[in-house]
Amino acid sequence: MISDCSQFGPGQPAITYGLRGGVWFQLIARGPKQDLHSGTFGGAVANPINALCRLLALLIDDHGRVQVPGFYDDVVPLSDVERKQFAALPFSEEKFKQQIGVKELAGEEGFTTLERRWARPTYDVLSIWGGQQILKSAIQAQAGANVSFRLVPKQNPDRIAAAVRQFLFARCPPGIELEMSVAHGAPGVVVPLDSPYVAAAQKAIEQGFGKKPVFMREGGSIPIVTNFKDQLGVDTLLLGWGLDDDNTHSPNEKFSLADFHRGIKASAHLWNELSSVAKK
Amino acid sequence: MISDCSQFGPGQPAITYGLRGGVWFQLIARGPKQDLHSGTFGGAVANPINALCRLLALLIDDHGRVQVPGFYDDVVPLSDVERKQFAALPFSEEKFKQQIGVKELAGEEGFTTLERRWARPTYDVLSIWGGQQILKSAIQAQAGANVSFRLVPKQNPDRIAAAVRQFLFARCPPGIELEMSVAHGAPGVVVPLDSPYVAAAQKAIEQGFGKKPVFMREGGSIPIVTNFKDQLGVDTLLLGWGLDDDNTHSPNEKFSLADFHRGIKASAHLWNELSSVAKK
Repeated sequence: MISDCSQFGPGQPAITYGLRGGVWFQLIARGPKQDLHSGTFGGAVANPINALCRLLALLIDDHGRVQVPGFYDDVVPLSDVERKQFAALPFSEEKFKQQIGVKELAGEEGFTTLERRWARPTYDVLSIWGGQQILKSAIQAQAGANVSFRLVPKQNPDRIAAAVRQFLFARCPPGIELEMSVAHGAPGVVVPLDSPYVAAAQKAIEQGFGKKPVFMREGGSIPIVTNFKDQLGVDTLLLGWGLDDDNTHSPNEKFSLADFHRGIKASAHLWNELSSVAKK
Repeated sequence: MISDCSQFGPGQPAITYGLRGGVWFQLIARGPKQDLHSGTFGGAVANPINALCRLLALLIDDHGRVQVPGFYDDVVPLSDVERKQFAALPFSEEKFKQQIGVKELAGEEGFTTLERRWARPTYDVLSIWGGQQILKSAIQAQAGANVSFRLVPKQNPDRIAAAVRQFLFARCPPGIELEMSVAHGAPGVVVPLDSPYVAAAQKAIEQGFGKKPVFMREGGSIPIVTNFKDQLGVDTLLLGWGLDDDNTHSPNEKFSLADFHRGIKASAHLWNELSSVAKK
């Protein structure tokens, strides 16, 4: 049992049955051996920031589709049943936009917001750097970025990383040396819902939170779930009491005390329920 | 007289007769109101770094041509005479590559390296930022870049800035708020070579450096040269004793003591030569 997931929303607890995986890497573009005056040398040498922006832009089109050949080959299409289940959840695009402070949502065309968050792969540049924030007329010697692709079940992180590497190196402009270091990769996962453990969790959550949990997927990644399955042959029960406005991985991260207390109750009930589940 | 230029190379003094101008601006792309977990929210919101890279990449094609409509309209084509003069200068691409530490030169197709450095406009992202250099799985709330276009004579910095603004805002993806602040702009300039002041400088430099100066243009910008012409009606004599391996705007900037001494001598001779030039 891993409690690193969240509720569907305030007052609506959930059991998570799917996680995205991902592949994370750092990209460095190197140009001249040191910074160069952008007037004296500009136009004569490849600029590592220009090159990095170009390469990062090439990875996706303006319909939100990743351009790396084979990227979508192993993506399991959403079934009609699952699309209907997602659509039946009480999700408000307006509230969501207000919560995160954007006028419009964005992403891969042809999918709803929950589908894009839970069951479709992503491409996000997590950070980028080159030069200083002050205005200084120099072409930088190098620039870098941290990049992630979130992946869905069946996509193989190693194969994706190799395809991305091939894509980027084939398009690296003359005068630029590229370096790509994969930090880590993890496959996405879907766990079965028809187990006695899930039934036990349903009962426990209802007792702790006073409301039946819904089933949902989650866009984040918990790589060890795959290791537990591969190495130990067991599925993981994915629970959690957080909310998606908890500002995780962001300033002012919080956790509601009321949910903390409900979670304690649900956990105590869970041990009780699990004690009556026969060992497989 | 402004001494902010350089020699053509070691042992080859020069008189500069053309400078590039430029327009410098900062671009900020804003997305969600604060950083968001890239698993929970990835795929649902526009990522400011992705958007910034895309916009910066759209500004130029892979032949080194700026894509902003009208950008080249006012560029004065190089005359055959000037191209021949550039080609006659003792410039070695191999030495230049070695000096700046690149395997290949790059830039706008169809022009030699000196033409691209002295007489063609450029597009360089000078710095870029968003997130941290550590790997952290968050979509940033914002990202930014400092950008410059070096311009050649007749290109109007205000018009170029307005055209760039229009180009970028028209292509800004949904969910991203763009902000563009122009820091400054300066037109490029070409000064006449047939003046008695240039003749005086030629004599003075030959006496100070023991070698006749060549005539060259320079990729950098000295905005006040245009103001002197517009406000005072006078041309500027563009001299200088630096070298293009002086690491200007870069770590370990230097200035050769031998050139310092030769420059002192040439300057003394220059006052002497100028004293015999009649006031216009």
